Amino acid sequence: MATGFGFQVTATDGKARTGVIDTPRGAIRTPAFMPVGTAGTVKAMLPESVAATGADILLGNTYHLMLRPGAERIARLGGLHRFMNWDRPILTDSGGFQVMSLSSLRKLTEEGVTFASHIDGSKHLLSPETSMQIQRDLGSDIVMCFDECPALPADDATVARSMALSMRWAQRSRDAFGDRPGHALFGIMQGGVNISLREESAEKLKEIGFDGYAVGGLAVGEGQEAMFSVLDHAPGFLPADRPRYLMGVGKPDDIVGAVQRGIDMMDCVLPSRSGRTGQGWTPRGQVNLRNARHRDDPRPLDEACTCPACRSYSRAYLHHVVKADEIIGSMLLTWHNLHCYQSLMQGLRDAIAAGTLADFVATFNATRTAGDIAPL
Amino acid sequence: MATGFGFQVTATDGKARTGVIDTPRGAIRTPAFMPVGTAGTVKAMLPESVAATGADILLGNTYHLMLRPGAERIARLGGLHRFMNWDRPILTDSGGFQVMSLSSLRKLTEEGVTFASHIDGSKHLLSPETSMQIQRDLGSDIVMCFDECPALPADDATVARSMALSMRWAQRSRDAFGDRPGHALFGIMQGGVNISLREESAEKLKEIGFDGYAVGGLAVGEGQEAMFSVLDHAPGFLPADRPRYLMGVGKPDDIVGAVQRGIDMMDCVLPSRSGRTGQGWTPRGQVNLRNARHRDDPRPLDEACTCPACRSYSRAYLHHVVKADEIIGSMLLTWHNLHCYQSLMQGLRDAIAAGTLADFVATFNATRTAGDIAPL
Repeated sequence: MATGFGFQVTATDGKARTGVIDTPRGAIRTPAFMPVGTAGTVKAMLPESVAATGADILLGNTYHLMLRPGAERIARLGGLHRFMNWDRPILTDSGGFQVMSLSSLRKLTEEGVTFASHIDGSKHLLSPETSMQIQRDLGSDIVMCFDECPALPADDATVARSMALSMRWAQRSRDAFGDRPGHALFGIMQGGVNISLREESAEKLKEIGFDGYAVGGLAVGEGQEAMFSVLDHAPGFLPADRPRYLMGVGKPDDIVGAVQRGIDMMDCVLPSRSGRTGQGWTPRGQVNLRNARHRDDPRPLDEACTCPACRSYSRAYLHHVVKADEIIGSMLLTWHNLHCYQSLMQGLRDAIAAGTLADFVATFNATRTAGDIAPL
Repeated sequence: MATGFGFQVTATDGKARTGVIDTPRGAIRTPAFMPVGTAGTVKAMLPESVAATGADILLGNTYHLMLRPGAERIARLGGLHRFMNWDRPILTDSGGFQVMSLSSLRKLTEEGVTFASHIDGSKHLLSPETSMQIQRDLGSDIVMCFDECPALPADDATVARSMALSMRWAQRSRDAFGDRPGHALFGIMQGGVNISLREESAEKLKEIGFDGYAVGGLAVGEGQEAMFSVLDHAPGFLPADRPRYLMGVGKPDDIVGAVQRGIDMMDCVLPSRSGRTGQGWTPRGQVNLRNARHRDDPRPLDEACTCPACRSYSRAYLHHVVKADEIIGSMLLTWHNLHCYQSLMQGLRDAIAAGTLADFVATFNATRTAGDIAPL
């Protein structure tokens, strides 16, 4: 791996692994969930609060940051860590996914993607080379290859053509990244739900050689069953001694299923985004705090949770501040949701270390949707 | 004073006083600035952060809380302190000011004010008796008399008629409040900018007898000069051994001028509200973080400030998150502004205790609007 980086698997349970990714900015306990700090902030959270939930690393979005405030500006200001006051590791995506979902007037060529900013319409090019430069300007610890990700369902020919392009871009990303001690580069496997394309993609990435390997192109509309059927095979195509990162996943049961199948890292906006719409996650399911049934309820959102929202506030209060559109509603529910997610990750790590993952998953599945919590 | 309450003036400097209001929920250092927690939250702040700025007491709005979530509901849930997770003193206003500024279909009679909620149009009555009951349900430590406050300018006859009504309501508030150990009742002087009406109002309030006395009906459009000309006299009409509270004030220079004239307590939404619109307050003046001149500025908002926003973030970052409408912008700037206000109060208390208030005010006035900070 890159200088300053290391990955030790300390225990396995079936295909699941627990371990530590060492980085110059600190250790990342795996399986790890990365909160998303889209535009230089995990929305509604101070960074010290994100750390207090148990997050070892967060994800920044290249697409958002290049457009506003601009990667060169962040570089002049000392890099993304200093800019956003987060001194632990940061992984940045390549911008490839967001440019396809958020920008307009896109044009995809062998060179890259030209597009118009969703903020001010300004023209930009994202390519393997510009993405590497932007992620260098940001100073991210874990850099992602620039790739292309078709929406699913798509026919095999489309998926194969797209995967082949992403593999050529992976080589160009590797070449453009160069040798940067203290910074790691991850490749991204594509291939949709086609297992042989996934294997072909993995072989190509291993030929190039990366510090870690992501499973990309999932959680894009294929459904959990199809995603798990890919994950039954895909992690096994990747080197066992490198971290495996499943991008953009997911709900708690997606995370549990992915970890069972050998995934080490994940990220998702779900816990933070749903905290801003009055949704609270618990190990047993999801709670809609907007619902009037909470308005006189003196109980905490989750009796078993130790986060600030559950320690000090009633469901009645959370209902009130959500209904009144008070910022503290987003602050408390985002904190709770991130705490809930990190507690799940700690539970998974402990269970794998103890060799009791099957019991952990059985309990997780049995208690979900119990009590008065609305089903997921 | 009410059982459990006390007020000691520990030092004076000219007309200015510093001291302590003792309450069953803790001491309030005076001169005191009370952040406004309108609807059960100081917007964009966790209550422990409000306390960290140095606030000993906050203000809750009867009008907002009676409409949503409802005072009886808050009473069933254990009172406002528990509901909003603030165990220090709370002062609640009477609802009289907001009902005139926010509600619709108002009808003012000797009995009180009937009005329609600005939230759902529901009909309500606020009167001395219902206001006392609502503030009892909320469990506030310092209860304000129900009063009527005409907008200025107004002719003397209108102001006199309104003041006389407020004094009759003050007597009814006193009668309805009864004897509540551990809870104090403050009267509210009215009379607009007419000094003899102010004196008449003060005499009437002293006849009734209250635990503290507010100067109401200022900061309603009369301007600082007119306000100060009232404050040159009004505090002297009130008992020296009781706290004097100037309602709804103000900008930092309003606060300094009021303290010089013998005021002990103040409240205002300004620091919190302006924190949500990208405005930062400093002892030298106001900074508009939306301004593009901050976008590359690595300096903190205020080099001398020790708040989290100034310790850990650049003006460039604050500009970015304000422009991007990120919640953390409101969180950091509100924290900063409340910290700035509480630092000013601490400076005033220290100067009065040291007998150096004139020097403090001279420095405050000389350094305002200096440097690159936009004028107030």
